[in-house]
Amino acid sequence: MNFCSHCGSDQLEFRVPEGDNRPRYVCSNCGVIHYSNPRIVTGCLPVWEGRVLLARRAIEPRKGYWNVPSGYMENGETVEQGAAREVWEETLARVQELRLHTVFSIPHINQVYIHFLAELNGPDFGVGEESADVRLFAEEEIPWKEIAFTSSVFTLEHYFEDRRQGRQEVHIGVMEWG
Amino acid sequence: MNFCSHCGSDQLEFRVPEGDNRPRYVCSNCGVIHYSNPRIVTGCLPVWEGRVLLARRAIEPRKGYWNVPSGYMENGETVEQGAAREVWEETLARVQELRLHTVFSIPHINQVYIHFLAELNGPDFGVGEESADVRLFAEEEIPWKEIAFTSSVFTLEHYFEDRRQGRQEVHIGVMEWG
Repeated sequence: MNFCSHCGSDQLEFRVPEGDNRPRYVCSNCGVIHYSNPRIVTGCLPVWEGRVLLARRAIEPRKGYWNVPSGYMENGETVEQGAAREVWEETLARVQELRLHTVFSIPHINQVYIHFLAELNGPDFGVGEESADVRLFAEEEIPWKEIAFTSSVFTLEHYFEDRRQGRQEVHIGVMEWG
Repeated sequence: MNFCSHCGSDQLEFRVPEGDNRPRYVCSNCGVIHYSNPRIVTGCLPVWEGRVLLARRAIEPRKGYWNVPSGYMENGETVEQGAAREVWEETLARVQELRLHTVFSIPHINQVYIHFLAELNGPDFGVGEESADVRLFAEEEIPWKEIAFTSSVFTLEHYFEDRRQGRQEVHIGVMEWG
């Protein structure tokens, strides 16, 4: 942030506003405080006959790695709608009746991943625009060393563990930095 | 947004960027795309001997109404850390071992509420800076018509219903507009 998006001034200070307890960008010209907050990455692991649907990323970051279909939640949608939209955009699969599965904070990059589970009605999927490949994986086929993000590892590990235990739980986690 | 926060230009267009599928503020001068995404409001319902701790808001919006201690999640923290911080700021109570309770989307104002539950170690609390009053309420004492936000009603109703049913679940909901 170099300029105030409200008045266009370059007189920005990074300081603790009055009555606040942490530094923000404050415009010395018009007084507007510019807040920055974590973003939600929402997604869903589609399941078909015990196999899970992953998308190989065609774009950076982590191009070529496999991922639980996920992306930034957009304004005007619910977390579940965003997850279903991401599944559609990346895998051309339609998911309904989403069950909350994981909430995973990554404090050092200001992200919160929210992942759902959903059963597919059939093996109907394809390769979306941001994907290089889309495939169903049985547990023993998961390419653990080629999973794009820690959040997806967290979601996959808990999915298979819950299945072994015959339970459905919501798991909350955090990625520690370093 | 009147000016580009990157280059200071007032040549902003609200249009769908190439390769995207929804309109964003795009700077015609420097090309930067300005994304806007939903914000997380994180909070926790503290419980002490079956009673729940609510804070009466000393600030707008909904000044004077009672609320589950909550506020905007900040950069650099986990969802749980944010919830515990908000409890401390509003009620001077310390919560640990937070259990996820509700995830509540409000699409028309681009917010997602994430509420936890936590048992207090004792009735140790006070009136934080943004609160006008803080009190423990038994179920029959809840001032239902003076609850600040729909998200808090959702959290409180599910808490008492779960308790009646002898279960602990995570509930996902949405506020419909209008």
